[in-house]
Amino acid sequence: MSTYTLQTTVRRPYDEMLEVVRAQLGEVGFGVLTEVDLSKTLKQKLGVDVPRQVILGACRPPLAYEALRADPSVATLLPCNVVVREVDPDTTVVEAFDPAKMVTMSGDASDAVREVADDARSRLLRMLAAVGGKTE
Amino acid sequence: MSTYTLQTTVRRPYDEMLEVVRAQLGEVGFGVLTEVDLSKTLKQKLGVDVPRQVILGACRPPLAYEALRADPSVATLLPCNVVVREVDPDTTVVEAFDPAKMVTMSGDASDAVREVADDARSRLLRMLAAVGGKTE
Repeated sequence: MSTYTLQTTVRRPYDEMLEVVRAQLGEVGFGVLTEVDLSKTLKQKLGVDVPRQVILGACRPPLAYEALRADPSVATLLPCNVVVREVDPDTTVVEAFDPAKMVTMSGDASDAVREVADDARSRLLRMLAAVGGKTE
Repeated sequence: MSTYTLQTTVRRPYDEMLEVVRAQLGEVGFGVLTEVDLSKTLKQKLGVDVPRQVILGACRPPLAYEALRADPSVATLLPCNVVVREVDPDTTVVEAFDPAKMVTMSGDASDAVREVADDARSRLLRMLAAVGGKTE
């Protein structure tokens, strides 16, 4: 189990979960700025098969703005990636980079970044709870 | 100075550097999968001004594939973000998330991830050297 992500495993098919996650990110106040179909990209570029998965780049502009003011380097950690990955036809993993990790990395700026990261983290946990399954 | 990024400061205007960085990422074997104009996004959504900056999501598919096989959670750290940010009309910062940080986060999978991260890191350092300026 990764220590740098928040994740949940859900007994629902991948295509359905992808729509649910997009909708629930909106419910908790995140917009999706980028979208990378990683499995399609690797198939096209290398001809290899990996589990179907999409990386959604989620951003809440007020939080991004506060984080940037505290530490401009935080831009390299934005948007916050949420990955939807197929496990089998009935099971899907939803996994987000844990914003708490930004705090451990941001050193001197950590107090200001912590507030923002706590806010982002609690929204992501609400999203993961809303999409169902067992959150770890 | 951030401890989780690789960066250089260059005495060249922002618009010019953006094109140079895009080209040099290609030279070192990275494709750009995503692009977020962070300053435009924050202006549109919040009406606030931050220094002009774009987040380029750089990916080298063979490295992404190896990293994913070692640790599926690495998807939440992909693509590797390279930020081009205006300091003043003559000065631009180019700053990339340091792939070495993936290793410290990936725990048990760190040996396999380390090889990939070392490769990605040396390519990013070559790009930063090629775009000029003082690398830190």
